[in-house]
Amino acid sequence: MKVNICQFNYRTNDCKSNFDKIKSVLDKSDAEVLNVFSELSVCGAPLFDLTLYKEIYESSSVYGEMLCQTGKTFIVGTVAKGEENYNYNALVFVADGEVVALSTKRNLSRFDSHFTQGNGLEVIKHKGKTIAFGFIEDFESFILKKIKTDIIILCSNQLFDKDDKEENLRTLSFYARQLNADIVFVNRVGAEGSFIFSGGSFIVNKQGDTCEKLSLFEEETTLADTDAMKAKKFVPLCYEEKIFKAGVLGLRDYFRKNNIKKAVIGLSGGIDSAVAVVFGAEALGKENVMGVLMPSKFSSEHSLIDAEKSAKNLGINYLTVPIEDIFEASLKTMQPVFEGTEPNTAEENLQARARCMIVMAIGNKTGAAMLNTSNKSESAVGYGTLYGDDSGALSVLGDLYKTDVYRVAKWINREAEIIPDNSIKKAPSAELRFNQKDSDTLPEYDVLDEILVDYIDNKLSFSELLSKGYDEKLLQRVFRLVKINEWKRHQEAPALRYSKSCFTTDYKQPIS
Amino acid sequence: MKVNICQFNYRTNDCKSNFDKIKSVLDKSDAEVLNVFSELSVCGAPLFDLTLYKEIYESSSVYGEMLCQTGKTFIVGTVAKGEENYNYNALVFVADGEVVALSTKRNLSRFDSHFTQGNGLEVIKHKGKTIAFGFIEDFESFILKKIKTDIIILCSNQLFDKDDKEENLRTLSFYARQLNADIVFVNRVGAEGSFIFSGGSFIVNKQGDTCEKLSLFEEETTLADTDAMKAKKFVPLCYEEKIFKAGVLGLRDYFRKNNIKKAVIGLSGGIDSAVAVVFGAEALGKENVMGVLMPSKFSSEHSLIDAEKSAKNLGINYLTVPIEDIFEASLKTMQPVFEGTEPNTAEENLQARARCMIVMAIGNKTGAAMLNTSNKSESAVGYGTLYGDDSGALSVLGDLYKTDVYRVAKWINREAEIIPDNSIKKAPSAELRFNQKDSDTLPEYDVLDEILVDYIDNKLSFSELLSKGYDEKLLQRVFRLVKINEWKRHQEAPALRYSKSCFTTDYKQPIS
Repeated sequence: MKVNICQFNYRTNDCKSNFDKIKSVLDKSDAEVLNVFSELSVCGAPLFDLTLYKEIYESSSVYGEMLCQTGKTFIVGTVAKGEENYNYNALVFVADGEVVALSTKRNLSRFDSHFTQGNGLEVIKHKGKTIAFGFIEDFESFILKKIKTDIIILCSNQLFDKDDKEENLRTLSFYARQLNADIVFVNRVGAEGSFIFSGGSFIVNKQGDTCEKLSLFEEETTLADTDAMKAKKFVPLCYEEKIFKAGVLGLRDYFRKNNIKKAVIGLSGGIDSAVAVVFGAEALGKENVMGVLMPSKFSSEHSLIDAEKSAKNLGINYLTVPIEDIFEASLKTMQPVFEGTEPNTAEENLQARARCMIVMAIGNKTGAAMLNTSNKSESAVGYGTLYGDDSGALSVLGDLYKTDVYRVAKWINREAEIIPDNSIKKAPSAELRFNQKDSDTLPEYDVLDEILVDYIDNKLSFSELLSKGYDEKLLQRVFRLVKINEWKRHQEAPALRYSKSCFTTDYKQPIS
Repeated sequence: MKVNICQFNYRTNDCKSNFDKIKSVLDKSDAEVLNVFSELSVCGAPLFDLTLYKEIYESSSVYGEMLCQTGKTFIVGTVAKGEENYNYNALVFVADGEVVALSTKRNLSRFDSHFTQGNGLEVIKHKGKTIAFGFIEDFESFILKKIKTDIIILCSNQLFDKDDKEENLRTLSFYARQLNADIVFVNRVGAEGSFIFSGGSFIVNKQGDTCEKLSLFEEETTLADTDAMKAKKFVPLCYEEKIFKAGVLGLRDYFRKNNIKKAVIGLSGGIDSAVAVVFGAEALGKENVMGVLMPSKFSSEHSLIDAEKSAKNLGINYLTVPIEDIFEASLKTMQPVFEGTEPNTAEENLQARARCMIVMAIGNKTGAAMLNTSNKSESAVGYGTLYGDDSGALSVLGDLYKTDVYRVAKWINREAEIIPDNSIKKAPSAELRFNQKDSDTLPEYDVLDEILVDYIDNKLSFSELLSKGYDEKLLQRVFRLVKINEWKRHQEAPALRYSKSCFTTDYKQPIS
């Protein structure tokens, strides 16, 4: 049977635009082809509370019917009203323009907040083949039923995960052999806020061979004939490239879908802003990114040089706006309160907040959105200033530990120096006082990140980490810092999600 | 049978402190009394991702066993490990120090993220009575089983909802008659971050009469003999008082549980800050709240007078810190960018951000946390400055529409002028330019709030609102503002939750 895998980037709550995309495929499709689109392709996703409003059902239903009028054969994802006001996340099988079957999602995920539990995979006869179709979340319970089928079609809205080792492909390849069926996996691509959907749809045949595999992070369609499929070789992207492409897609979709053209970003000469701006320029075009250099008396000479180089290497516009006047005015203003006290984070935060004021003022004046440049290690231990460098419309690196930022930086520089070498080599510093280094306050990042991965990603307890040989005092300090900074993370710029432990979208702890 | 309802305020992930509280009751309890504590009373709640770590199970188990050693009879809530690493939200029935039964939660709520689905209510024989016990979420499926019992005990961690009309009491009273059983409802009290647990535990007898009802928002124990219960009269709190007491509890617990003593708050002379500071002073003590007056050239004369009066009426300390120097310095700094442009929100936001800088600087220097003073109407339509007046450790009024803020203000002033009358009477203004009024940009708040309640709380769609007779242009504007400001709400100060549609904790929309 001929199956056309349609891996597209949809718009949430914009059925018209999704309809256009789907219809353009159907219009060109031969009558015998089964066109498969991903989960909620008609209405977009994630919908969250939109499922509590009537519009999404009405609109999905209107455009769904218009798709049927093409007279073609396809599977699309849509919201569906059932009896007694039950609402389903559904896949509709349309054969020659007639709805012939519906699979409603049973194992609801966190994106399915207000949906009713459905029935799982459906099995139908179509053109002499027995086809099971449904959501990948419902596949496990389908396996147990041991139903004999020729083809299994699984649709999904699967999120990107930098640590994923093609687990879906391996699992489905195993079950293709076990169940002696071809398996078609259709995922969406594109981003919505923090959420990046990775694409990478594929077909495995009854021998478990990968016969088609679509790109990660790109829209693509692939026509396959399940009766004549052969194993093919596919070269996977490396870890760093996956992260970079995911981030670029996330940024691009955030701006595009929110109708923002331009970004503004503070460049400190440090590694984080130097890496974040590369993502920004790649996603939005160098002409749409403005760098801002904001030196103070605590800035070292190399900071300005490195920041400038970072902008020049990319060919983006940049401005130099010293913070001295605002900082001095704020010290003068605060004098009645500060007088007689030792300098502490209050003075340091004033500088970070002055910088936020400047970047936001440029953004407000020019219609640009501020990119945040913090990383996950800082966010974990609260090494940043709220309403200062923790700000921004979107955080590019907020779900990447510092050691990952270094890895991506080196990958970006694999052929030429785009990120200034010195930004990669020098010791990280916030430069909020003279000769300050991150390592004055924090453990070295390679040690810190190892602990953070075990604690935050692997969910190891204190005693388990202790038995791995970490220093007890150090562990206590890191655990305490992570805990007491939970409140701060609630107000940091939302981060693009690269992992299962993203602070914005996944990791959740009590605030007290 | 003698039942002791124990309505306490627990600490999340602090089994030792919860144990002390529970044990002090058990130590004083007669042998024949059944002491009932609320959901997750041993370990505190909500736990969120803490349930993914070993510690909470180990600690709960240790302290749970120590409770058994009292030899007393009680029901407590705790996490429990089952077979195959399944984790349950459980209630344990201990008779004379022996665990005799376990009810595991079946209908898991959003606070039960990583728990395994359990079995629902359990029925046991105890001292000649048939007792069903379990979570209130599982009561509905228990009813269907039509099991004959003498007493039904339902434990909960129920959130405060300002619009609740004692629904639990009415429902359980109905079923007490239907099932011919006494029903004991035990709720917790206290707050964790945004979440306020309201207490209000009660007993209804077989005739459906309310025989005991514990206070809202306060720790309390009540001993009742189910064999000798009579209907009693209880006077409910009024709407405004419930909100005020809920907010005071929320604030107090946020500060206490995060070990913060002092609060700092900007006082503009407007209604919002005037109301928020009353909550603050009541929760933390007037000596622990510092008001900050931050006039600019756009401030009207009455603003300073009203702000000062608001501080003086409460007897809190206050400081006057003009923003002029910082504002002028920021305009000078931004001159290369702003030159030749029309003044817009960029200049206005600079002032709001200067104020945030000042309040945060005082907070950072004195160890005080900043209270946010924004209301829900502003938050809904984005009428506020991110990293400016949208900031703060905790938002006191962020889940109250402006019209609710007025209602609470008038209630606070029911006997004497605490909130300056002029703050209540004058037209609301952000005072970021000369003679600015909120109504220049927004509809009048009574009209706006009516639309917002229908849209955000009642989930009415555009067409449904239109058919209610609202002006189409106005509706379009409000809907658009709510939609385009979703990204801002992701970074606003977390709000104390008073309703089912709190932006911080409940209402969730796609960001694009």
